[in-house]
Amino acid sequence: MLGRTTGAGVETLKERGGLVAAFITFEGVDGAGKSTQLQLLARRLQAAGYTVVTSREPGGTPLGEAIRRMLLAREYELGVAAEVLLLAAARATHVEEVIRPALARGAVVLLDRYTDSSLAYQGGASFAGVEAVLKINEFATGGLWPDLTILLDLPVATALRRLGRPPDRMESRGLDYQERVRAAYLQLAARWPERMAVVPAEGNPEAVAEAVAATVRQRLGLNI
Amino acid sequence: MLGRTTGAGVETLKERGGLVAAFITFEGVDGAGKSTQLQLLARRLQAAGYTVVTSREPGGTPLGEAIRRMLLAREYELGVAAEVLLLAAARATHVEEVIRPALARGAVVLLDRYTDSSLAYQGGASFAGVEAVLKINEFATGGLWPDLTILLDLPVATALRRLGRPPDRMESRGLDYQERVRAAYLQLAARWPERMAVVPAEGNPEAVAEAVAATVRQRLGLNI
Repeated sequence: MLGRTTGAGVETLKERGGLVAAFITFEGVDGAGKSTQLQLLARRLQAAGYTVVTSREPGGTPLGEAIRRMLLAREYELGVAAEVLLLAAARATHVEEVIRPALARGAVVLLDRYTDSSLAYQGGASFAGVEAVLKINEFATGGLWPDLTILLDLPVATALRRLGRPPDRMESRGLDYQERVRAAYLQLAARWPERMAVVPAEGNPEAVAEAVAATVRQRLGLNI
Repeated sequence: MLGRTTGAGVETLKERGGLVAAFITFEGVDGAGKSTQLQLLARRLQAAGYTVVTSREPGGTPLGEAIRRMLLAREYELGVAAEVLLLAAARATHVEEVIRPALARGAVVLLDRYTDSSLAYQGGASFAGVEAVLKINEFATGGLWPDLTILLDLPVATALRRLGRPPDRMESRGLDYQERVRAAYLQLAARWPERMAVVPAEGNPEAVAEAVAATVRQRLGLNI
């Protein structure tokens, strides 16, 4: 699973002692339903006998959670460069301490956000530049890309209504900002169609979960 | 003072309303005498009428100090990529919140460590790669380089004896590591001779301070 490059897809899945290691990430604007869909897919995979590891970004390690608190609390006013670098630092520890070891054990790793979030939010919507953010994240992850990225896509207004709680610092940037995030995500999906699958996320959670499972079956050949 | 590139030197100094903005950094292995020499130069500049701002890295902002605690405490075991990225994040806020505003006010800014520390320690001695670390720091700083970098150079064994206190996480990496840091610093000084000045730092603090002041006079034309 190591050393794959940006466009990698299903052909990199490797069987290890009967176990199938796969790295799947969920992306989308806030309120798109990522954590719900991640949990539904995790249950379905576990029911089918797969070993599943779930995590989220920023977070997943002690340093990552500390950085998450820094970013989401309103304690520090951060420029976009600092934000990119902090997120990448958290990601580096996540890859090293959680993701690579889980893949090496033959687990299916499900992540709520990964590099594409930095590309869409900071690189695209906050104008740090997608290519610069991409290089920094290649450094942070040692070039580890997901086998499959599920982009849960829906109108931004619908997503924000779904949140149903006060927004944190990164969510409270307004409708225009979220629209730029959505557009940036769709550009990434068009750039890497082999790795990324756009799944419409306006329906009820069960219907979306069916579409997610169908995508995982078709793209990765997992029996769910 | 903005937008200068790697090799920039004395010709970029700008007079602003009679004030001379200048950006001077101190580099060297632990125990080389950076903080002592920084304070001695600050006093000399102040006595000559310059407005002086002093700071240190990692640190200098609330986020930077939080990151400093993360890095120097033994709370987290960090890989070198995370270390590079955290240091760069701290540096980004330092540049934005402290260094650029001070230069814009016409201050002489003295820093205990800056980008060269990341290049020598993580890039060179820890093998993250000088060019990769350079690109990340260009992103973090928006390309802001010092007008003058004083590299306080001395044998590593002498420097470690001088510390006279238990080493923190980053200092406790052994003599071989510190030797690689010293060598990496000297390579940087050879690469950017216009910006960097190697000042031998084995002598007593007053003698070294004289050499530092002479370098500042010659390289930057400051009247001290």
